[in-house]
Amino acid sequence: MSKQTFSLKELASRFDFEIKGDSAIEVSGLATLQSADGSQLSFLANPAYEKYLEGTHAAAVILSPSVYEKISSQEQQYTVLVHSNPYLAYAKLSRLWEAKVSEIVNGDNVHGTATVHESAVVSDSAIISAGAIIQSGVKIGDNSVIGANCVIGEDSIIGNNTLLHANVTLYHGITLGSDCIIHSGAVLGSDGFGFAPSEGAWEKIAQLGGVIVEDDVEIGANTAIDRGALDNTVIEQGVKLDNQIQIAHNVRVGKNTAMAACCAVAGSTTIGQNCVIGGASGIAGHLTIVDNVHITAMTMVIKNLTTPGVYSSGTGVQPNDKWRKSIARLRQLDKMAKRLSALEKIAKN
Amino acid sequence: MSKQTFSLKELASRFDFEIKGDSAIEVSGLATLQSADGSQLSFLANPAYEKYLEGTHAAAVILSPSVYEKISSQEQQYTVLVHSNPYLAYAKLSRLWEAKVSEIVNGDNVHGTATVHESAVVSDSAIISAGAIIQSGVKIGDNSVIGANCVIGEDSIIGNNTLLHANVTLYHGITLGSDCIIHSGAVLGSDGFGFAPSEGAWEKIAQLGGVIVEDDVEIGANTAIDRGALDNTVIEQGVKLDNQIQIAHNVRVGKNTAMAACCAVAGSTTIGQNCVIGGASGIAGHLTIVDNVHITAMTMVIKNLTTPGVYSSGTGVQPNDKWRKSIARLRQLDKMAKRLSALEKIAKN
Amino acid sequence: MSKQTFSLKELASRFDFEIKGDSAIEVSGLATLQSADGSQLSFLANPAYEKYLEGTHAAAVILSPSVYEKISSQEQQYTVLVHSNPYLAYAKLSRLWEAKVSEIVNGDNVHGTATVHESAVVSDSAIISAGAIIQSGVKIGDNSVIGANCVIGEDSIIGNNTLLHANVTLYHGITLGSDCIIHSGAVLGSDGFGFAPSEGAWEKIAQLGGVIVEDDVEIGANTAIDRGALDNTVIEQGVKLDNQIQIAHNVRVGKNTAMAACCAVAGSTTIGQNCVIGGASGIAGHLTIVDNVHITAMTMVIKNLTTPGVYSSGTGVQPNDKWRKSIARLRQLDKMAKRLSALEKIAKN
Repeated sequence: MSKQTFSLKELASRFDFEIKGDSAIEVSGLATLQSADGSQLSFLANPAYEKYLEGTHAAAVILSPSVYEKISSQEQQYTVLVHSNPYLAYAKLSRLWEAKVSEIVNGDNVHGTATVHESAVVSDSAIISAGAIIQSGVKIGDNSVIGANCVIGEDSIIGNNTLLHANVTLYHGITLGSDCIIHSGAVLGSDGFGFAPSEGAWEKIAQLGGVIVEDDVEIGANTAIDRGALDNTVIEQGVKLDNQIQIAHNVRVGKNTAMAACCAVAGSTTIGQNCVIGGASGIAGHLTIVDNVHITAMTMVIKNLTTPGVYSSGTGVQPNDKWRKSIARLRQLDKMAKRLSALEKIAKN
Repeated sequence: MSKQTFSLKELASRFDFEIKGDSAIEVSGLATLQSADGSQLSFLANPAYEKYLEGTHAAAVILSPSVYEKISSQEQQYTVLVHSNPYLAYAKLSRLWEAKVSEIVNGDNVHGTATVHESAVVSDSAIISAGAIIQSGVKIGDNSVIGANCVIGEDSIIGNNTLLHANVTLYHGITLGSDCIIHSGAVLGSDGFGFAPSEGAWEKIAQLGGVIVEDDVEIGANTAIDRGALDNTVIEQGVKLDNQIQIAHNVRVGKNTAMAACCAVAGSTTIGQNCVIGGASGIAGHLTIVDNVHITAMTMVIKNLTTPGVYSSGTGVQPNDKWRKSIARLRQLDKMAKRLSALEKIAKN
Repeated sequence: MSKQTFSLKELASRFDFEIKGDSAIEVSGLATLQSADGSQLSFLANPAYEKYLEGTHAAAVILSPSVYEKISSQEQQYTVLVHSNPYLAYAKLSRLWEAKVSEIVNGDNVHGTATVHESAVVSDSAIISAGAIIQSGVKIGDNSVIGANCVIGEDSIIGNNTLLHANVTLYHGITLGSDCIIHSGAVLGSDGFGFAPSEGAWEKIAQLGGVIVEDDVEIGANTAIDRGALDNTVIEQGVKLDNQIQIAHNVRVGKNTAMAACCAVAGSTTIGQNCVIGGASGIAGHLTIVDNVHITAMTMVIKNLTTPGVYSSGTGVQPNDKWRKSIARLRQLDKMAKRLSALEKIAKN
C-alpha cells in the first residue's frame, strides 16, 4: 500500500492548516485518535470522540479553532493543525494515502490480456487492466482506468480521470462522465423492467434509451442503473450512490444527491438536488422528490415529496412479544376508532 | 446502435395497424410524444400523456380506436396507426430497434479469448463472447449468446435463442431454457443458505439440488437464484424477474409471474402463476402464494396468501416529526386499547 | 456431478449412526423422503415431514431415537440410521456428494488463461481457474481455489482451503481466512461510503482501512463488504452471510452470527456473537447489538439492542383495502389519543 511520508509543514501549506507545534515532524498515514501511533496524523470532528484526544499517541491532530482554544492552555504531546473544518480537511488529506490503482505492466497501459476492439478510441494515458473487454466504438478519455475483467459495451463513452474498479459492466450506449468512480459489480445500462401484458403473459419492451452519468459521480459495488425505455436514465453531476442500489429506467437523480446502500428508485421518478436518502429506502415510480429532501433509512416513499424536509416511515424495532401485540392492535385500529366515536356519542348525551 | 428504417406500410402489415394518413413515410426509431422528431414513431397508451398528442412532431403515432375517433375530425401532422392495444404494439415494435448483441469477430462465433472446455457441446450458431468461460459438460443451444466474461459451470445446459449479457455466472448443474434473457451480474446456482446448528457454530449443508429456469424467462442485473438443498429451485416459463432480486433455495415461481426489483423470497416458498410482486417486497419461507396475487411494493409477507387479490404492508411516508409521533403512539396502542375498554365499562354503568 | 456410492456400514462408522436393518446396502445420494428412490438416503428432522416417512422409497432414513422408537414396532422398507441429531447428521453427510470444484487442466493448477503477477505467492496446491487475475503481492494458501474470472487485488491474503466461486472480486489489502467459501458476485473491500459535505457537494474520504474476514466464514452471492475508513471492517470466525447483503465500513460481525439475504448493516455498527438476523433487515450505523440477539425478517433496527432476545418491526401483510384503512387510522393515532384523554377527563367528572 501507499506509505508516503509528508512533513507537517508541507501538509499545512497544501491544505491550509495553522500549525501549533513542531512543523518538521513527518507523518506517513492517518488513524483514529485511539489507534494512532507516532507516525500518524489524526483528527477530531465529532465531539463524541473528544474524550480520546487526551490519550492519543498521534504525532499531530487536526482540530477546529474552538477545540484548540479549549486545550491550548495545556501542553500537548502532539502538534496541532488548526483548520476551520476538520472533517473536510481529513477528507482531503485522506486522498494522499489512497491506494494507487492497477500498475502499468511493462510500460504498456493496455494489459496483454485485455481485449480492445480496433474501432475503440482509447486515450494513450488511459489504463486498460488485465482481462478487460472494450467493445466496438467505445471511447475512453485521458487518465481513466478500466479495472480487471471490466466489460465496456459498444459505443459507450467514458470521460477523463474516471476509475472503474474490477468487474464493472457497462452495456452498450452508456455515457459516463469524468472524475467518476465505479465500484466492482456495478452494472450500468441493463434493460429497464418494461413489459406489456399480453394474453396472460408478458411481451418484452426493448429498452432503447441509454444511461447518462455526469461528472464527479461515485457508484457503489453491485449497484445497478437501468437504461431508459425511450429517453435516458440520468445521474447528474456530483451524485454519490452507495452499494446495492437499484435505479430503474428513466429515473433522474439530481446534482449532489447522496443515496445510502440498498435504496431502490422505481421508473420515471425524478429526485431533486442535494437530497440525502437513507439506506434501504424505496421510492415508487413516476414520483417527484424536490431538492433538499432528507429521507431516513428504510422509508417507503409512495407519494410526491413537494417540500424540503425530513421524511420517514416504518414502525421501528421492538421486542418480538411487544411487536406482536402492536401488530394485533394495529389490525384493530379501525374498530378502536369506531368504539371511540361511539363513546363520544354517549358522552355528548 | 441499430438505426434501421421502415416504411409505415411495412410496419402496418407486420404489426397489424390500420393506417390513417401517409403510409409511404419512413421511420427510423421510436420516441415519446414529447421528444419525437419527424423521423420517429410514437404512441399513446396512457391517458395521462394525451396532452402531448397535439404538439407532437412524431411522423406517426399509434393510437387506440377510441382515441383516434376523438381526434379524427381535426387534421393531424402525423400519420395515425390505429391498433386495439397501443402499448402491446409499442412493445412489439420496440424490438425492431433493439441493440444487436456481440459482434462475431473474424467470422468466428467463439471469440479467441473465450475458454471452451473440450467436452462442452456448443451449437455452431451460438456466440461465445470474449473472455467467456464454458466449463466441462456444458451444452449451449442454437443462436444463444454468451456475453463477455460470463462463466458457465460444469454440466449446465442452456437452450436456444437465449441471451446472457456480460458477466453472468452460472454455477454447475443449472438448466436454463430457451428464449431467456439474463442480465449482467446475475448469479444462478449459488448455494442455498443451509446450515445445521452445532455447538454454537454452523455446520454447512451442501446444496445438492440445482436450478431450473424454463423458457421465456428474463432475469435482471445482479439477481441471485440459489440452488436447491436436495430438490431444485424452479423458475417457471414466462417469469420476469427484475434486478437485485434474491430467490432462495427450493423456491418455485409460477408461470408468468413478474417480480420488480429488490424482492426477496425465502426458502421453499411457492409463488403461483400470474402474480405481480412490487419492488423490495419480502416473502418469508415455506409459504404458499396462490395464483393472481398482487403484492404492492415493500410488502412484508409472513403468512400464506390463499386468495387472489391485492396485498400491502408498511406505514407509508410522513414528515419525520409526525412519524415520530406515530411511532410513539404505536407503542402506546396496547395501553390505549385498555383505556378504551375501561371507558366502555364506565359507559355501561 | 459427483455420484459416489457408499455402503451404509461405511457411513455408520464415519458419521456415528446406529444401524437398524441391512448395513450392506449402498447409497449414491441424498433426497427428501417424498422424492427418494432406492439408491438414496433420506432423513427426518422436522416433525412436519413425519407424514412422508411411511411411503418413502428411500433405501435408508436417518431418524432420531425417539422417532425410531415410535416406528420400530412396524417393519420398514428402509434401513434406519439412528442418530441423536438427524439434521446435523444430514449436514455432514451432504458434503460427501458436494460438487467438486474447477478441474485441474493438464495437471496445471494455474489455468493457462489466468494472470498471476510475478510477485504473488500462490501455494502449489492452490487452484487458479481460467481468467482469474491475481495482482501483485497477493498470497494464496494451500488447497485454496480461486474461481474463474475472479479478481484478487494487490497485497490481499487468502488462507488455506478457501474456495472462491467464479466472478468474486477482492480489492487490494483484504485479509481472507482459511476454510472460507465466497460466492459469485461477492465484493470484498469496496470503498466505505465516506464523504465530507463541502459547499453543497461531497468531498470523497479515501477509505484507508481494509477488510478482515476470519476463518470458516461463508459469504453469499452479490454480497458486498466495504473496507474501513481508517480501521478495518471485520467479519469474525464462523460467520455466515447469505446473498445480497451489504456490510458497510467499520462494521464488526461477531463469531458465528448468521445473516439471511438482503440484510444491510450501516457503518461502525458492532454485532455480537451467535446472533441470527432475518432477511432484509436493516441495522442503522454506530449501534451495538449484543450476543444472542435474534432479529426477525425485514426488521428496522434503529437503536442499540442491549439484551439478548427476539426483535421485530413492520406491520405485516394485509389485503390492500384493509391496509389502506390501517394506514389512515395510523395517521389519526395522535388525534385518537387526544380524544381518548378528553373522554377520560369527562369520565372523571
